[in-house]
Amino acid sequence: MKLSEIAQTLGLERLGMDADVSRVAPLEQARSGDLSFVNDSKWLNKPNAASAWVVRKQLASNLLDRPCLVSDHPALDAARAGLLLGMTPFGMDPGIHPQAIIHPGARLGARVSIGAGACIGDGCLIGDDCLIHAGAVIHRGTVMGARCVVQANAVIGADGFGYEFVQGRHIKIPHFGTVTIGDDVEIGACTTIDRARFGATTIGDGTKIDNLVQIAHNCQIGKNCIIVGQVGISGSCHIKDFAVLAGQVGVVPHVTIGQGARIAASTGVAEDVPDGATWSGWWGQNHRDNKIQIVMMRKLPELLKKIRAIIDREEVRSPDVSK
Amino acid sequence: MKLSEIAQTLGLERLGMDADVSRVAPLEQARSGDLSFVNDSKWLNKPNAASAWVVRKQLASNLLDRPCLVSDHPALDAARAGLLLGMTPFGMDPGIHPQAIIHPGARLGARVSIGAGACIGDGCLIGDDCLIHAGAVIHRGTVMGARCVVQANAVIGADGFGYEFVQGRHIKIPHFGTVTIGDDVEIGACTTIDRARFGATTIGDGTKIDNLVQIAHNCQIGKNCIIVGQVGISGSCHIKDFAVLAGQVGVVPHVTIGQGARIAASTGVAEDVPDGATWSGWWGQNHRDNKIQIVMMRKLPELLKKIRAIIDREEVRSPDVSK
Amino acid sequence: MKLSEIAQTLGLERLGMDADVSRVAPLEQARSGDLSFVNDSKWLNKPNAASAWVVRKQLASNLLDRPCLVSDHPALDAARAGLLLGMTPFGMDPGIHPQAIIHPGARLGARVSIGAGACIGDGCLIGDDCLIHAGAVIHRGTVMGARCVVQANAVIGADGFGYEFVQGRHIKIPHFGTVTIGDDVEIGACTTIDRARFGATTIGDGTKIDNLVQIAHNCQIGKNCIIVGQVGISGSCHIKDFAVLAGQVGVVPHVTIGQGARIAASTGVAEDVPDGATWSGWWGQNHRDNKIQIVMMRKLPELLKKIRAIIDREEVRSPDVSK
Repeated sequence: MKLSEIAQTLGLERLGMDADVSRVAPLEQARSGDLSFVNDSKWLNKPNAASAWVVRKQLASNLLDRPCLVSDHPALDAARAGLLLGMTPFGMDPGIHPQAIIHPGARLGARVSIGAGACIGDGCLIGDDCLIHAGAVIHRGTVMGARCVVQANAVIGADGFGYEFVQGRHIKIPHFGTVTIGDDVEIGACTTIDRARFGATTIGDGTKIDNLVQIAHNCQIGKNCIIVGQVGISGSCHIKDFAVLAGQVGVVPHVTIGQGARIAASTGVAEDVPDGATWSGWWGQNHRDNKIQIVMMRKLPELLKKIRAIIDREEVRSPDVSK
Repeated sequence: MKLSEIAQTLGLERLGMDADVSRVAPLEQARSGDLSFVNDSKWLNKPNAASAWVVRKQLASNLLDRPCLVSDHPALDAARAGLLLGMTPFGMDPGIHPQAIIHPGARLGARVSIGAGACIGDGCLIGDDCLIHAGAVIHRGTVMGARCVVQANAVIGADGFGYEFVQGRHIKIPHFGTVTIGDDVEIGACTTIDRARFGATTIGDGTKIDNLVQIAHNCQIGKNCIIVGQVGISGSCHIKDFAVLAGQVGVVPHVTIGQGARIAASTGVAEDVPDGATWSGWWGQNHRDNKIQIVMMRKLPELLKKIRAIIDREEVRSPDVSK
Repeated sequence: MKLSEIAQTLGLERLGMDADVSRVAPLEQARSGDLSFVNDSKWLNKPNAASAWVVRKQLASNLLDRPCLVSDHPALDAARAGLLLGMTPFGMDPGIHPQAIIHPGARLGARVSIGAGACIGDGCLIGDDCLIHAGAVIHRGTVMGARCVVQANAVIGADGFGYEFVQGRHIKIPHFGTVTIGDDVEIGACTTIDRARFGATTIGDGTKIDNLVQIAHNCQIGKNCIIVGQVGISGSCHIKDFAVLAGQVGVVPHVTIGQGARIAASTGVAEDVPDGATWSGWWGQNHRDNKIQIVMMRKLPELLKKIRAIIDREEVRSPDVSK
């Protein structure tokens, strides 16, 4: 297919020469005849064998007359080009797999697909066009909106982890609550979302949750949040709309993370985060402060040599200095 | 139901006016007619629409004549009230699901329930009243006491991660051991507990393990421990009775964590922890020391400005200071 | 069985007296009649009831005339002795379990075993002698070499976590790619390996991956790597041959970890790691530097007392010092 045809169909600006492409491939694996894509200037000049590239506007000027499409969202438009080129994206066989296990008390919307070995419990409501992959377990009473995707072996609605210590033993607190999930939510493979003690653990519309994430009982996750792999959110946290939690972030119980806040990878959040803030650190804080402190810590050994020299001389001058 | 009736049935002191309640709900989701509960003074004056509250003794005096029940364990007594009010806690359908996969060589105690798609291997012994949720895999030879709960998609008894590097390759060490679990143990969704190389990986009576936890081969976990979500415990560790490991804690191999020790969230434990100690830190240490160092680190930039000024002047006074 | 017979069959040197052993057991659980093994001098003199030990050469001299076998790989040779003694290592029933769910479009090699509830998708190629444990989900198009082991409830080939933010919403990027796995790879329980957007996520020959690991879309993992439990590797990373990532390591997107590099437990890797380097730290860096800085940080409170005394006196001498 001609690059110029793809440009026209997708409504993208084309620069440089035209080219024939038959496939979309990542930069490192691209061969002649492939269309690839570049998100960042640092990959722009990496040698690669692709025949054409989807690039951001600001990078296009560096490409001279090499064949390219200009896009604000190179990966997404590369995928759209893949569809035009007849490539088949990953999906699942439509419909209910004969080996899915669906409780007669569950209600499924139109065009719901459910994979082999997936379990849907009593009283679940699954919205239209949801995809529930193989082995996922949706426990009783879970409510899910339209167009959600649940990846394989995820578990929604297990008991929360709640005990009271009474007379030398941990006594389980029964969980009466459920899980309520909005529209267009995605839930990663082996991710676990616990039911509430009372009321509901809630996930807002458009929120995307990666693999191996733990969301504990009674969390309220807002709309359009991004929660990356292996994040752990403790009980009764409130994550507001558009917050982004990078991989392996941990959040202690009863914390609020503000609207649009961004939490760097592996950050431990032990207190409320303001709207729009960027936080990082083992003991999370403002990212700028954290970065300065880390830089200083790295200069510490050098600096301390000098300080010790001063202390040594001070102790000669005034021997009581350390008292 | 009258609050006064609930008080009488549960044997709790009632303060303030009487009230009618029909449901238990968390503070943020409570409506008129709901009984809610408060664990901490910081939520006491949060506006909420509940009609009555279960509170700790020391908070009760702040409630003036609002209807409340006094409890040492508000969440637990709120749950007991929920049972009185006819609410149904999460559980599982009793008995063996027809799509559970149970090896004929496994032996199950009385009143064991096993969910759809769960697998019980050859030679497993499952004690009375255990609940094994959907998709859980209990590999051959696992021994489990009475009243245990295994949440969905947990894996017990997979091969430990043990290799020897011989002539440029990693050679797998066969695992001959098993997993032995006491009474009243709970194991979270997608949690993995590996079998021992020889002997048994053991989990003591009353220990509660949250979701997505990794317990490696040959660990000896004591009684009544609390192991929160996403904790990782390396091979051959010994966690003594009543230890508490908060979320995302990591423990290197062959470490002993003392009786009743408390490890803060995301702490890395790289050496033995004494009985009763509280530890924290990326490189775990005594929590008090760790906290002081973190506070100091946050003051470092300010302090270093002053130090630099001194060094600069010192270098004028004695130019050899840094040598 | 006589220790001398085991020594002869395994080709190991025997020291001290001969002994009768009937079983292999870990040091803490060993009884009379057991053969145990010791990897490290610190366990050498731990009291234990074993009748004989497999030890490293350099430890043997401390054992006086106690019965022992000398080995470069004590755990591995203890396991070989276990086989001689008739012990049965963990494995799985050979063949395809009747409740495995295999798409007619999947192709399986010779002597492949697949556990109950495991799902193999359309177009998968599974090499000879692979073992796929119960509940594992291998999505469509996955290619796997010979002698691989996939532990229970692992998920291979789920959609990568890729979205573009367009007009206030996260739009899913379709994933056209697959997962390609070499020979002799092991994949732990509840581990997730995502398919590529385009091309393939690849795992090299001989690489061993522990439980609950996340490997994101388009990662290229080399040969003979060791990736320990709960590691998270973000999209498009390149992990070169023989790299070792200890437990809970996190790696940001588009990073290269060099050949033979060793990353300490819980390290956050935010930039490229050179070949052969050892790194550690919340914000990962050279391990030696990180260790020095941590030691200094621990001495900081003491040192700062002295510094404050100097600053105080300096401020008397020259009151403008802090300006």
